[in-house]
Amino acid sequence: MEFKNVKVIKKANVYFDGRVDSRTIIFEDGSRKTLGFMQKGEYEFGTAAPEVMEVLGGEMLIKRAQDSGFIKIKEGESFSVEGDSSFKVVVNDYADYCCSYK
Amino acid sequence: MEFKNVKVIKKANVYFDGRVDSRTIIFEDGSRKTLGFMQKGEYEFGTAAPEVMEVLGGEMLIKRAQDSGFIKIKEGESFSVEGDSSFKVVVNDYADYCCSYK
Repeated sequence: MEFKNVKVIKKANVYFDGRVDSRTIIFEDGSRKTLGFMQKGEYEFGTAAPEVMEVLGGEMLIKRAQDSGFIKIKEGESFSVEGDSSFKVVVNDYADYCCSYK
Repeated sequence: MEFKNVKVIKKANVYFDGRVDSRTIIFEDGSRKTLGFMQKGEYEFGTAAPEVMEVLGGEMLIKRAQDSGFIKIKEGESFSVEGDSSFKVVVNDYADYCCSYK
């Protein structure tokens, strides 16, 4: 699977002291996605716009405001997160992901 | 700095148990680059075609076949590696890089 006719910002977005990194992809219609990679660890991410997170490789456990417990998201699966909220992530090995902003 | 009108392979290239990850960027002329990220660690990479490695963030210490010792490559600096050879890398924090194939 690939994105065609896009712009890629060369420099990585770096979070949690480098344990999470991502690249910003800009589409012809001006919309953006990020392709990112998480190392083993526990994280919390805030959202501004609503997001859809797709796991491309590895897996992650996630917990959003509405979740009573952690949910495992495996390769090929995705989940959505409301805007102006946050979600917790636990990665036990690594997780390759794509984040889309609605 | 950005790459325009390119294809991006969505799924990451994953090396060293996830401690190094990269994305493949394909240009209109068919040439490729990878945008990658290295975690703290010691690595050795083999080359097929000659490569030019550019450090976009962080820094790395490198040692090619012709080097008598390790050389520090900082953000904004680059180095070239002959084809069909290898080079050692030591990362003390993290390193964001772009690899071009000649």
